[in-house]
Amino acid sequence: MRLPKVVEDLTNSFEKLPGIGRRSAQRLAFYLLRVPQRDLDGFAHSLTNLKKLTKICIVCHNLSDSENCSICADPSRDDAQVCVVESFQDVIAIEKSGSYKGLYHVLHGSISPLNNIGPDELYIDTLVTRTKKGIIKEIILATNTSLEGEATALYIQQALSGIEVQISRIGRGLPTGVEIEYADDQTLMQALLTRKSI
Amino acid sequence: MRLPKVVEDLTNSFEKLPGIGRRSAQRLAFYLLRVPQRDLDGFAHSLTNLKKLTKICIVCHNLSDSENCSICADPSRDDAQVCVVESFQDVIAIEKSGSYKGLYHVLHGSISPLNNIGPDELYIDTLVTRTKKGIIKEIILATNTSLEGEATALYIQQALSGIEVQISRIGRGLPTGVEIEYADDQTLMQALLTRKSI
Repeated sequence: MRLPKVVEDLTNSFEKLPGIGRRSAQRLAFYLLRVPQRDLDGFAHSLTNLKKLTKICIVCHNLSDSENCSICADPSRDDAQVCVVESFQDVIAIEKSGSYKGLYHVLHGSISPLNNIGPDELYIDTLVTRTKKGIIKEIILATNTSLEGEATALYIQQALSGIEVQISRIGRGLPTGVEIEYADDQTLMQALLTRKSI
Repeated sequence: MRLPKVVEDLTNSFEKLPGIGRRSAQRLAFYLLRVPQRDLDGFAHSLTNLKKLTKICIVCHNLSDSENCSICADPSRDDAQVCVVESFQDVIAIEKSGSYKGLYHVLHGSISPLNNIGPDELYIDTLVTRTKKGIIKEIILATNTSLEGEATALYIQQALSGIEVQISRIGRGLPTGVEIEYADDQTLMQALLTRKSI
């Protein structure tokens, strides 16, 4: 059966999204056929304007709708602490934990030679410039604990050498609620290395 | 962290779709931030025009982009056979099997008192009118084998009584590739009832 072109097009658009296969894409298109036109128009409006109405903060490169993101613009945040993360999602996760009151620096990725991403593709130079101003006292490297994340943390550490700032790496060990029996070797090794006397 | 309004809106639109939760919705919105504007515009265009450019076939109520759907308009299809299904998706599934060359009749649902859907909400009256014309020789009731589907099939059978047409129900039994050990009671009962001598 030949589907109407517009249904086919919409299915294709959904199928291009990560984690959505052909069948799910078609199911979504059929579902939207029964949704009020107003909702469809709203959805379409958000899509067309997504990139037009979104800015990247000129200081920390976080997602924003103005020149400075809501975190950089917040005077109650501690501007002596900067947490370096790979992505917007990492900022959201750390903010949700409610345990951090400093500023951020979003790298927009990690060093990955396999994917042709070198240090120049990331916002590392702006981090160095930002640190050189002397306001920042501590840089917390919160890149992922993957190979790429570790390599990126190491590279930043070297790039900041010579600048007077305390550099720390986010703590390693067992995540909360995990049974030791099921923890992987690397995590257990790190947990033993970071043990504390009680 | 306060997300830009347009990202928040897009996340909400995705979250309303079936099978997409808050986290996935946000992931999709972030993913689309890195997609070319042209693709976003195409996606938005399909959404806005989805209902405007989609018609329902005036004969069989299947999805179409003109008055008659591609199946009803195809002269090679057998117009003496009509397969009655609940939804567009059912038409797609049967067409994909490649085992049917007749026409269809899409009911747009099944009788479900719990959801306030009675026979009048479905395209049953047009099926009766269509059958009365005398061209159709066989009606194959291919509604789901759920309680609602069975009730709908029974209702249609009664609605067509008095009209000279052969009515059949889609075959019941074990699906292909299934182990008897894991088949449910109802399926096994039907499979025993529909046994054939070899």
